[in-house]
Amino acid sequence: MVSIAPSPFVHPAQLASALVSLRSSTPLIQCLTNTVVTNVTANVLLAIGAAPAMADLPGEAAEFATIASGVLVNLGTPYAEQREGMMLAAAAANVQGTPWVLDPVAVGALAVRTELAHRLLELSPTVIRGNASEIMALSGSGGGGRGVDATDGVEAAREAALDLARRTGAVVAVSGPIDLVTDGTRTVLVHGGNELLTRITGGGCSLGAVCAAFAADADDVLAAVVAAHAYYALASERAAAKCAGPGSFAMHFIDELAAISAEDLAAKAVIA
Amino acid sequence: MVSIAPSPFVHPAQLASALVSLRSSTPLIQCLTNTVVTNVTANVLLAIGAAPAMADLPGEAAEFATIASGVLVNLGTPYAEQREGMMLAAAAANVQGTPWVLDPVAVGALAVRTELAHRLLELSPTVIRGNASEIMALSGSGGGGRGVDATDGVEAAREAALDLARRTGAVVAVSGPIDLVTDGTRTVLVHGGNELLTRITGGGCSLGAVCAAFAADADDVLAAVVAAHAYYALASERAAAKCAGPGSFAMHFIDELAAISAEDLAAKAVIA
Amino acid sequence: MVSIAPSPFVHPAQLASALVSLRSSTPLIQCLTNTVVTNVTANVLLAIGAAPAMADLPGEAAEFATIASGVLVNLGTPYAEQREGMMLAAAAANVQGTPWVLDPVAVGALAVRTELAHRLLELSPTVIRGNASEIMALSGSGGGGRGVDATDGVEAAREAALDLARRTGAVVAVSGPIDLVTDGTRTVLVHGGNELLTRITGGGCSLGAVCAAFAADADDVLAAVVAAHAYYALASERAAAKCAGPGSFAMHFIDELAAISAEDLAAKAVIA
Repeated sequence: MVSIAPSPFVHPAQLASALVSLRSSTPLIQCLTNTVVTNVTANVLLAIGAAPAMADLPGEAAEFATIASGVLVNLGTPYAEQREGMMLAAAAANVQGTPWVLDPVAVGALAVRTELAHRLLELSPTVIRGNASEIMALSGSGGGGRGVDATDGVEAAREAALDLARRTGAVVAVSGPIDLVTDGTRTVLVHGGNELLTRITGGGCSLGAVCAAFAADADDVLAAVVAAHAYYALASERAAAKCAGPGSFAMHFIDELAAISAEDLAAKAVIA
Repeated sequence: MVSIAPSPFVHPAQLASALVSLRSSTPLIQCLTNTVVTNVTANVLLAIGAAPAMADLPGEAAEFATIASGVLVNLGTPYAEQREGMMLAAAAANVQGTPWVLDPVAVGALAVRTELAHRLLELSPTVIRGNASEIMALSGSGGGGRGVDATDGVEAAREAALDLARRTGAVVAVSGPIDLVTDGTRTVLVHGGNELLTRITGGGCSLGAVCAAFAADADDVLAAVVAAHAYYALASERAAAKCAGPGSFAMHFIDELAAISAEDLAAKAVIA
Repeated sequence: MVSIAPSPFVHPAQLASALVSLRSSTPLIQCLTNTVVTNVTANVLLAIGAAPAMADLPGEAAEFATIASGVLVNLGTPYAEQREGMMLAAAAANVQGTPWVLDPVAVGALAVRTELAHRLLELSPTVIRGNASEIMALSGSGGGGRGVDATDGVEAAREAALDLARRTGAVVAVSGPIDLVTDGTRTVLVHGGNELLTRITGGGCSLGAVCAAFAADADDVLAAVVAAHAYYALASERAAAKCAGPGSFAMHFIDELAAISAEDLAAKAVIA
């Protein structure tokens, strides 16, 4: 029996309407992401009702960002050609007003992507999503993790997240056992989820793409990002209840993302 | 109860013998394909009884095309290095007489790949496979889609497909709810299939690889490409009947590709 | 009923302790691997209890090799940028004493990677893992296969493996129906496994990553590599017993890797 004071900032009905809106609009999400998770990211986007497109060539990335509904820039494996495409896509999204998400994978721990992340920050990401170590490193208050691992807790990153949100104007989301989402003024915690998400690759990276899909056309980006996290958490709980290990969890997770209704989401999400 | 006049051009027995032939020869299929679908494409090829090899380096692509039984060139994420490998592999396949398939992903919508597709067209692809938007764009009669989505219907692309086949000498296949396969003279419709194929990534891209596997050593390329589409459609129907969503569909689809017998294919395929 | 004389070199209890040790240390494994198998390799590493990181940029690869517990260099799709990263990572691992695994995919058959493999050999890999064709080609005694296929038997590669181990100081593992692992003096055969592993992509490539995870912090690298192969074989047998084809095999295989206990491994492994 969960007994948590409900969030004063986001109402469960907003989660439901965000999901209805997403599924009725089939947003086209341009993903500039890492080679490990392209497949699962595309399948997650298809399962939730969005349309993925991995358009990251320097000669096409900006052009595509003007027709996309949302853009994901994930720094997992930023090859030279893709780095160029990322800057072009983010710049075009910024000019065009297309919502875009920055996922600073392993920033702080590694040099090339850390420099890139700071250049991207100047292009006004709509959402920044990472684990505690990454958000702390990006805000300048931590030393970075050891890759995709979260070596710091979400609460340890609270001040860093608030600071980053205030300085950049982005909604900042910190993933962990309890997720924290803030716009620098309002802060929402998303409870629930299952740790098997950390035992499959792409668990975090695909969430960045889901944030982009929810942020597309959102009036309230904070509520959209909270909806993305709550939906993800609920799907992971349902998948965990049916699976026999991480392999079958990954399969059920996709099925559950497709099966969850807006009513389910409003009824089961635990946000505080 | 399906009641469709059978095709005068391809007999069900030809589908069965195409599958028997493929499985007995284990054709080696060289794939120069996009980063999103490499994994699923390789698994699809292994499931049908072919042997995949992703050899797309400029220094190896031509060499490999001379030992491969078939070649797939898919334009989903054509990085600079891969574009060079594609031209070299297609040229070598053309000289060597190795059947090769062009999958013009998102051609028309995006600049780099559109220019590349037109250069590849001059290297005489054996098969061209795409959705209606892509085939119309490639033939010069449409404006292109918004990536991998088919925004035009298959019938709308009939004339474009026929024209493209006549001009290039390729067998042209247009994927959709009903697939259309033509060599410019003979046109065959492949019925069946399940729309869940459009809810997983690689559903179309892997079909291009399957076309390459069937085209390898085929006497009648039209019949081979029809067999590829009918086999794919049947496997998707069977998988859809067993699954609980797109995640489990993807798994069952691979199982069904491996399980379908030549007799199943001849008995269940609906071609007109 | 298997009746095989037990290995005089590796005791089943060593396999169990190797697995316990791996799971308690969660080794961070840096993978410089091919685009086809990045996803499945990461999922395999997570399932066994290791932490994957695909850090292969020239500007980051050496830096990462100094914090990783083990490094995998797999030559499946060695793009120019990755080739540079591979040399840097292997050199740093060599200087630092970080165990690193060379998987010479399709060496012998293709020019670019063959040249690269020979340069990497000079950086003292801790483990070399491949199929018979690849090991024979690398040792100079065979002509190479046709990509990832093993066209030669494991026994045919015995002398090549021993010679390669002696010349390089590496533990050499040859994958096949029965796997052979040697340090040039001691040779162990690993029985068991299921051929469905050859019907899914990444079956061999992920094993290279598992070898790196077991080799991290191992006192006896030979025993560690035998443990990796025996664990892999057992998981494949269990998955094969539950699956309906290669699609469901892939899922169960991940589940079984996560489920197998150290006791299971010691009790069921067949090494001679």
